[in-house]
Amino acid sequence: MRLLLLNSNTSQFVTDKVTAEARRVALPDTEIVPATGSFGARVMTTRSEVAIGEHATLDALAQHAAGCDAVVIAVSYDSALSAAREMVGIPVVGITEAALLTACMLGSKVGIVVFGRRVLPLYQEVVSLHGMDARVAGWRVVDSNSPYGQGDQADADRLTIAAANDLVERDYAEVVILAGAVMAGVPLRLQDQVAVPLLDGVSCAVPQAETLVRLARPKARTGSLSALPKREVVGLSPALSRYFNGDQA
Amino acid sequence: MRLLLLNSNTSQFVTDKVTAEARRVALPDTEIVPATGSFGARVMTTRSEVAIGEHATLDALAQHAAGCDAVVIAVSYDSALSAAREMVGIPVVGITEAALLTACMLGSKVGIVVFGRRVLPLYQEVVSLHGMDARVAGWRVVDSNSPYGQGDQADADRLTIAAANDLVERDYAEVVILAGAVMAGVPLRLQDQVAVPLLDGVSCAVPQAETLVRLARPKARTGSLSALPKREVVGLSPALSRYFNGDQA
Amino acid sequence: MRLLLLNSNTSQFVTDKVTAEARRVALPDTEIVPATGSFGARVMTTRSEVAIGEHATLDALAQHAAGCDAVVIAVSYDSALSAAREMVGIPVVGITEAALLTACMLGSKVGIVVFGRRVLPLYQEVVSLHGMDARVAGWRVVDSNSPYGQGDQADADRLTIAAANDLVERDYAEVVILAGAVMAGVPLRLQDQVAVPLLDGVSCAVPQAETLVRLARPKARTGSLSALPKREVVGLSPALSRYFNGDQA
Amino acid sequence: MRLLLLNSNTSQFVTDKVTAEARRVALPDTEIVPATGSFGARVMTTRSEVAIGEHATLDALAQHAAGCDAVVIAVSYDSALSAAREMVGIPVVGITEAALLTACMLGSKVGIVVFGRRVLPLYQEVVSLHGMDARVAGWRVVDSNSPYGQGDQADADRLTIAAANDLVERDYAEVVILAGAVMAGVPLRLQDQVAVPLLDGVSCAVPQAETLVRLARPKARTGSLSALPKREVVGLSPALSRYFNGDQA
Amino acid sequence: MRLLLLNSNTSQFVTDKVTAEARRVALPDTEIVPATGSFGARVMTTRSEVAIGEHATLDALAQHAAGCDAVVIAVSYDSALSAAREMVGIPVVGITEAALLTACMLGSKVGIVVFGRRVLPLYQEVVSLHGMDARVAGWRVVDSNSPYGQGDQADADRLTIAAANDLVERDYAEVVILAGAVMAGVPLRLQDQVAVPLLDGVSCAVPQAETLVRLARPKARTGSLSALPKREVVGLSPALSRYFNGDQA
Amino acid sequence: MRLLLLNSNTSQFVTDKVTAEARRVALPDTEIVPATGSFGARVMTTRSEVAIGEHATLDALAQHAAGCDAVVIAVSYDSALSAAREMVGIPVVGITEAALLTACMLGSKVGIVVFGRRVLPLYQEVVSLHGMDARVAGWRVVDSNSPYGQGDQADADRLTIAAANDLVERDYAEVVILAGAVMAGVPLRLQDQVAVPLLDGVSCAVPQAETLVRLARPKARTGSLSALPKREVVGLSPALSRYFNGDQA
Repeated sequence: MRLLLLNSNTSQFVTDKVTAEARRVALPDTEIVPATGSFGARVMTTRSEVAIGEHATLDALAQHAAGCDAVVIAVSYDSALSAAREMVGIPVVGITEAALLTACMLGSKVGIVVFGRRVLPLYQEVVSLHGMDARVAGWRVVDSNSPYGQGDQADADRLTIAAANDLVERDYAEVVILAGAVMAGVPLRLQDQVAVPLLDGVSCAVPQAETLVRLARPKARTGSLSALPKREVVGLSPALSRYFNGDQA
Repeated sequence: MRLLLLNSNTSQFVTDKVTAEARRVALPDTEIVPATGSFGARVMTTRSEVAIGEHATLDALAQHAAGCDAVVIAVSYDSALSAAREMVGIPVVGITEAALLTACMLGSKVGIVVFGRRVLPLYQEVVSLHGMDARVAGWRVVDSNSPYGQGDQADADRLTIAAANDLVERDYAEVVILAGAVMAGVPLRLQDQVAVPLLDGVSCAVPQAETLVRLARPKARTGSLSALPKREVVGLSPALSRYFNGDQA
Repeated sequence: MRLLLLNSNTSQFVTDKVTAEARRVALPDTEIVPATGSFGARVMTTRSEVAIGEHATLDALAQHAAGCDAVVIAVSYDSALSAAREMVGIPVVGITEAALLTACMLGSKVGIVVFGRRVLPLYQEVVSLHGMDARVAGWRVVDSNSPYGQGDQADADRLTIAAANDLVERDYAEVVILAGAVMAGVPLRLQDQVAVPLLDGVSCAVPQAETLVRLARPKARTGSLSALPKREVVGLSPALSRYFNGDQA
Repeated sequence: MRLLLLNSNTSQFVTDKVTAEARRVALPDTEIVPATGSFGARVMTTRSEVAIGEHATLDALAQHAAGCDAVVIAVSYDSALSAAREMVGIPVVGITEAALLTACMLGSKVGIVVFGRRVLPLYQEVVSLHGMDARVAGWRVVDSNSPYGQGDQADADRLTIAAANDLVERDYAEVVILAGAVMAGVPLRLQDQVAVPLLDGVSCAVPQAETLVRLARPKARTGSLSALPKREVVGLSPALSRYFNGDQA
Repeated sequence: MRLLLLNSNTSQFVTDKVTAEARRVALPDTEIVPATGSFGARVMTTRSEVAIGEHATLDALAQHAAGCDAVVIAVSYDSALSAAREMVGIPVVGITEAALLTACMLGSKVGIVVFGRRVLPLYQEVVSLHGMDARVAGWRVVDSNSPYGQGDQADADRLTIAAANDLVERDYAEVVILAGAVMAGVPLRLQDQVAVPLLDGVSCAVPQAETLVRLARPKARTGSLSALPKREVVGLSPALSRYFNGDQA
Repeated sequence: MRLLLLNSNTSQFVTDKVTAEARRVALPDTEIVPATGSFGARVMTTRSEVAIGEHATLDALAQHAAGCDAVVIAVSYDSALSAAREMVGIPVVGITEAALLTACMLGSKVGIVVFGRRVLPLYQEVVSLHGMDARVAGWRVVDSNSPYGQGDQADADRLTIAAANDLVERDYAEVVILAGAVMAGVPLRLQDQVAVPLLDGVSCAVPQAETLVRLARPKARTGSLSALPKREVVGLSPALSRYFNGDQA
């Protein structure tokens, strides 16, 4: 199957990072099709960038979804996740959603590490929107930007390990999620030093998307996720406009 | 004071409707500055249009906020509400948020009428995001598009009155909100036929925005709503880009 | 409009304090009509005093509501708030209710500072009754009685600033409420030293009450807030009895 | 032991009804000491009467608590329950509280029948205040005042049975509470015609109060229920004033 | 009445401990009938032992319930509590359930001390299953096994007192539960050193079971707790099988 | 990989049904290893059978887990799910858990159809235990036992389709789960007649278990799911005893 891995950030660096991990975990016959957003933030870390990213996600989806069997939205705010489910006829999975759902099968309560205190409320709202508050043991903020760059990660790793183990020690987390697309693959490097299973979103989202493809359920014929009716829109890219003009399903 | 009334839909019809009601309820020295979105849906009624509308809201905000003292986002999904609060240095209020908060002072439990079953989950998510689930008595769906047009509203009125009173009778609602920007002013027409106070968002949001201006609290210096740091963005309108380039506060 | 500012405590000191702040924030054409409770606690800080204060609130309301357009209950337990809404035909707002609702428009999560650990559970119950638990970031207790007196406030100020900033630092509050009628006006003095907007109840309740007057919705004709039916009561003050005898609406 | 059965309504009829049931269920060596409120409503069915009843409860408590080993507040709004716990040094139980707690041991989910739609929100707030929302299967309103009178109860009985069985059939209640002090003893008459256990508050509260006496735990030395500090109050009855003057514990 | 005190652990030591406390608190005419599980853990402290204990509870119930008027399940995970209610025609109470319900009448918020961090999530799930999360102030873990043995308890006592008082100080608990059957009677020894009422499960469960016997409500005729229909089972003890064969009620 | 499909019911009929569907959905290189419980109910539909089934699940797990890479507990009460996760070193997934998690990726709100009103509360407790209440749109009970037999399913199918579509129409479910191991494969037969995706547990649990195997996270080294310490147990089967004797990991 062909799996669109959609990084709605405009940073190739992030796309490369998520693609590498997606390819590592994908089934042998799954082709990972990476795509990068064409406008907006390099790496979203403010509410304003995330709001713009909703549009960027749908725009990139319209550009790249054709010929794919499923979509992973590789932005950890699960940007435009439900809208994407409505817009296309194939399964769509968000990376933080996938990490949360998968974590539920690995521990009673879930700890979550976010990078930068500014984004903490955004992730809390993502978890609430998914209806998963009751499963959260606690949150930790790591104040380091280095995971978003290509330099040495030793300092960030140390802080991340400390945050994860603190969630285990003081909040009794039994599984820990590292939030953020750039955390793709990081659990492999840090798992040995954390006492409970460590998850990133990308490695969970790929098999979850494959699962939905294998289940092959039809798109809902009613409700907020059913196919877009024909709608009048203005000022959108030709690719995106086609989804509202009735030229796409 | 100058109050930006921002309809991120691209429909002048909706802008006119919300402006009329906003002017009716505003304080004498409040100038209503209407603005309409420049891209996206005519009137958002799908998840995809709402996702695009987040960007459209911020873009219109960047175009029109200068010189204003506060903003009312006149889209009933409270599109990009928190992002707008982060982006500008003046108070921002959403119309559904304002209706919910105001309703809390008028009744123990709140009934909500939405127009079209497709949008019901969107409004439920808005209410959840505002943390107000505990105050909701119940929901009713009116399946009529006529409020979005300029023709006769008699049928829609009849259905809306029935839905509101049914919320009172069966779900014990003590106040009822009519969700949707196009409901601006409608409570005045229907109130006599409903047994409890009837609210629309615009008439609540204008005095709420005025309240925040009068309170004159400073912008948070930390957290997700503090001023945007300088951020690298691409492909945005010049007006919107300026907010990320450090040329605006 | 005439706005009854009802301090159901029996302390003139508190009435003076809330009146000063109410007058400062009121619209030019709003006349603040202060009233003080005629029996019960000087300043309520125990559950027993608060229980008695429910009656004292309604009694003072019956004495003073005539000729007013709205009521602010200037007791931070929002004493007899819903009962007052039932009893009179004009809007009624509680100061803690108003602070909570207003705070929702200023920050994602709300921190609350209370004065004295004994009252913490009372405020937690007020917040729960308003259905606002989901918006609370955290609580802090300041153990100082000096805000209730007329002497030097330097020590209390220092503790309050520390508590507010600790809510920001450790609980990620994005707006902070100082609970208590005697906190009226205090945010003006302390705001500079706190990183997020700081609110007291009185300054929020006055514009909220004005908002309800401007909205001019009718009283509910059914439900728990509709007009009192004629009821047989004994042993109440003549003013209060009239509301149950059918002599008042 | 001596058990104060405190009806804060001013109706002797209700006192007689709750006393009869209390005596039927009490342990052989428990003496039921009935007391009636001295001011306020005959039978509280409005928010305003309930607010006044908070004071009436404490006043009656002050008049009658001396020499008793525990208190049952025989008003179904559990009026002033926590305040009473603070004010006196002996255990206090509310009748609706007791019914809810006891019901938890008899069924997975609890149905509740209330009499008159006006009081429904009041009972919902009582249940929320007790933190028991998660155990409620559903609510039914019986619109009949006859339980509050001395005439024929056949019609009310028929409606009550129907409401209880409807909670079982449609909401899957496994135990049903009849809310209201006047429901004391009614389950005995109706139980045969309802498919699940039927409870009233008084018959649950008496053994619960006896339980607390037998457990003989000391009063909390800190927190909102610890002994009243000396407080300045005005305009209260001599009996009640003594509790604030430090002349009582 | 005869009260079956069912310790589904296979440890006589625990049975002796709970029996002593049960006899101390029981009514004069209540005969405590102790029983011990016949298979499974000595003292359950792992999820696997607790899962097996569900069966062990029902098996012991089948062996010993005949001739009894009520059952107390003296395992602090309230093992097989609802199943036992379905299986037998007499009231059944769990010790942690009883402690939680009783605690609600003694304090606004409840602190809970558990012994061993491994069991913390199990108790959290018990509380959630009882729908009592909203009443919990906080949790503390005491890492000591000595309460499960017969040696000196001084160290464990010291840690337990510290944990309880810390719940009072930092989490504002107004009543504290010591979780675990082996805590039976311990509050008597430690109460003086804790600032709020201290509860164990057994001393609460015995009067609660007596209360249900005195209320004498009939078994539900429908729902998940109604009498077992005839069911085909294999491989169970003869005593237990009889309950499914229709030979018992 | 080898996937243990553990039906803790003692009915070969159910094992055959779940095995067929598991084999249909499994990856090509996944070997399904079916196992049936050795004691307890044929098909659990009472609380007592479910309680016994916790033990039966662990016993069967001990008999059959050796040599497997993951476990699916093919009992829709997710019997002993967390205990199994503690007991073995390989991933374990419950079928209702898997259906719930998978449903979250297919619809905003989830409808659930159960078979027989007696089991409704059991499933509600399963959903609550998984912390998923916020995602549930509604429940429907189909009163038919025929899915548990081998005869004609036409009647049950008709009722099930009606229940599913009623969840869509009246409760706005966007995805529907058919609860029960015997529903394995049924969605394939009924999907065409239901307007939204239809799920059973087995077809979701198999790919979820495969996902966990592929993720290859280590077992937690602390907490309630970490490896069993050596424990003294009595009266268990030799296979199960070995897990507590330290002879297994």
